[in-house]
Amino acid sequence: MSINITTEFLAKDAIRAVRRGDLIIIVDVLRCTSTIVTALANGAKGIIPVKSLREARRIHSENPGYLLAGERGGLKPPGFDLGNSPLEYTREKVSGKTIILTTTSGTKALENSKGARHVLVGSFLNASAVAREALSIALGEGIDICVVQSGTNGRFSLEDFICAGAIISNLIGAHVRLSDSARAAYLGYKRVENNLYAGIMESEHSRRLVELGFVGDIKFSCQMNLFPLAPLYDGRAVVAGR
Amino acid sequence: MSINITTEFLAKDAIRAVRRGDLIIIVDVLRCTSTIVTALANGAKGIIPVKSLREARRIHSENPGYLLAGERGGLKPPGFDLGNSPLEYTREKVSGKTIILTTTSGTKALENSKGARHVLVGSFLNASAVAREALSIALGEGIDICVVQSGTNGRFSLEDFICAGAIISNLIGAHVRLSDSARAAYLGYKRVENNLYAGIMESEHSRRLVELGFVGDIKFSCQMNLFPLAPLYDGRAVVAGR
Repeated sequence: MSINITTEFLAKDAIRAVRRGDLIIIVDVLRCTSTIVTALANGAKGIIPVKSLREARRIHSENPGYLLAGERGGLKPPGFDLGNSPLEYTREKVSGKTIILTTTSGTKALENSKGARHVLVGSFLNASAVAREALSIALGEGIDICVVQSGTNGRFSLEDFICAGAIISNLIGAHVRLSDSARAAYLGYKRVENNLYAGIMESEHSRRLVELGFVGDIKFSCQMNLFPLAPLYDGRAVVAGR
Repeated sequence: MSINITTEFLAKDAIRAVRRGDLIIIVDVLRCTSTIVTALANGAKGIIPVKSLREARRIHSENPGYLLAGERGGLKPPGFDLGNSPLEYTREKVSGKTIILTTTSGTKALENSKGARHVLVGSFLNASAVAREALSIALGEGIDICVVQSGTNGRFSLEDFICAGAIISNLIGAHVRLSDSARAAYLGYKRVENNLYAGIMESEHSRRLVELGFVGDIKFSCQMNLFPLAPLYDGRAVVAGR
């Protein structure tokens, strides 16, 4: 038996992957999925991704024990406990906590994945672990895998493309067949894998984050396989998974 | 002064490039733009790209001296003079002729480019020449450049992505800035440039063409810079250009 691996370039295209019945891996390297993986690695109980600030505030007013987190234009909205920088999500701050997270692209991709049988969360920080878990589920159930790149403001993002390639490089094997888009991402990743940070720094989003003073976030998010986690989105919250 | 280089992944997205006012380079390596470049290099007077078989036959009935050419599902339609194989477009057959060409993706991308100030036609066969001409026009007029990948049946195509990267590699210089998609294509190309044919053979469309018996077309279309041509589409026909 063989399974197909593909990748979509934009958060909105998660819907196509849901329609195909694929297992979905959501990627938003800068910074949503890197932040989620870090928070869970540091003991957060769960992350509730929501699209709008209003919805985030509503859930928070009903659950004042939750942390309110996220960004607009890269910056922490007024009154929020945390921004979207993975470096903020220390064990001291997040251990045992449920976090309401609203970001521009990554949470949109997660919400668009509702209805998929399995939604995992990927980043460089857990590329190998998320690939291993996805492959195990997909081979077990005989379904295909789609890595959904969140993009930035509805546009293609180099960093998500390269991260999709990194995850796909961990999926390649006897049982899989790559689509053209999956192979393109794989080639892009292989071209920069020996100097990932420099490759990611070429992206438009990196330039914007550097201007905002978040260069440390980029450096942190480019660390490969720091956490052996394959977080799982159940349609309400992202949890650490098995 | 600096210009932006970007690439779109699908024929339909040529419309976005038109809206931005970009100079457009259309790419459909397998096989439409490789065929157009070859036909013009072998002395064809012009190529009239049309979307439908009906439209192709109508123009032909009004101009019986024109050659009727193209494909559906990769194959030559009944009654046509030529298919979509660049190898058919020999000097003996096409010199001095006007050719009506209908293919699935490439002619769609060309038609969608109507309204752009400049539309050039690119392939591996003329990557360097088309890049040089595009850069000269774009710098002269202060406009941006977009390489439009035609894709296959509305889907992303690896071969067009890599060819876009090959053209972009000839555009890189002091005066240009690459978008994320342009850089992704560039990385993909650089990864396979030393074995282009093998890289292109990994694409889904190549597998289909091999099944149909067109492996020779793929080999031919992967030759870099065979022709110093920058064909120009004037909204009606593609001609050899300067």
